[in-house]
Amino acid sequence: MRVIENITYDELHVGDYATFTKTLTEDELVLFAAASGDVNPVTLDAEYAKKTTYKERIGHGMWAGSLISAALSTVIPGPGTVHLEQNLKFNEAVRLGDTLTVTLTVKEKLAHNRVEMDCSVRNQDNIEIITGTSLIAAPTDKVSLQEPNLPRIEIETT
Amino acid sequence: MRVIENITYDELHVGDYATFTKTLTEDELVLFAAASGDVNPVTLDAEYAKKTTYKERIGHGMWAGSLISAALSTVIPGPGTVHLEQNLKFNEAVRLGDTLTVTLTVKEKLAHNRVEMDCSVRNQDNIEIITGTSLIAAPTDKVSLQEPNLPRIEIETT
Repeated sequence: MRVIENITYDELHVGDYATFTKTLTEDELVLFAAASGDVNPVTLDAEYAKKTTYKERIGHGMWAGSLISAALSTVIPGPGTVHLEQNLKFNEAVRLGDTLTVTLTVKEKLAHNRVEMDCSVRNQDNIEIITGTSLIAAPTDKVSLQEPNLPRIEIETT
Repeated sequence: MRVIENITYDELHVGDYATFTKTLTEDELVLFAAASGDVNPVTLDAEYAKKTTYKERIGHGMWAGSLISAALSTVIPGPGTVHLEQNLKFNEAVRLGDTLTVTLTVKEKLAHNRVEMDCSVRNQDNIEIITGTSLIAAPTDKVSLQEPNLPRIEIETT
């Protein structure tokens, strides 16, 4: 069982960074579409996608953006973080099979436990998919707890 | 079978708006966590959440943000839209059972089919959960196609 320990505001220093990595398989794409209701044809309709400039189905840009939230909640600073603002610039499309790595770097410590973080999401070829910044309220209390388990999810194969 | 028809750059006018509505049930929360890897304890661990200022589990702010992507992809302007930039300000927490309505309004038409959209996400009590702006490349070709079907997804109940 993995334990998640947070990094408090006092423990964060400008320049500190950490990463979070996840691969976009058909499962993540379908689950994101179901969770958000974003049934964008270019992500789900192979025939339509073929006729676009992408030539094939692509992932949702906001799925890549959601990995930043995962990194903030579970890695740096972790539990107790309050997400206040998020800016995202989508530079390149995410493709099925891409492994994305989010790097979050402490850019500035502000008053009232606010922290500005630089966000960069790159694929396995080091191409920057997203650049952005997060404004958060960092945790003030140290927390160490078991990573929550998700229920088993089954996706019907067609 | 629902048909999605897009609104091209030429058809968009400043002030035009449309909405997209979705409810956060346990299913959406779990699917978003699985898709993104964001197993934030405050969204999944009831014991931990009780001790926070929220007093109960809350939804992911970025889930609410992902509804903006759904609105762009499927409602206004719809298929063919390229999401270029997204700014989000998270004002209030999303609670389980909340029904969120995204309203996207054309703010400015820019050169090269770029459009700036105002984004507002409100819950059933008209509380503004998210404010933001989207920068998109609007579609130039008219498209009308069947809404893609998602496979059946089963979540194990514990």
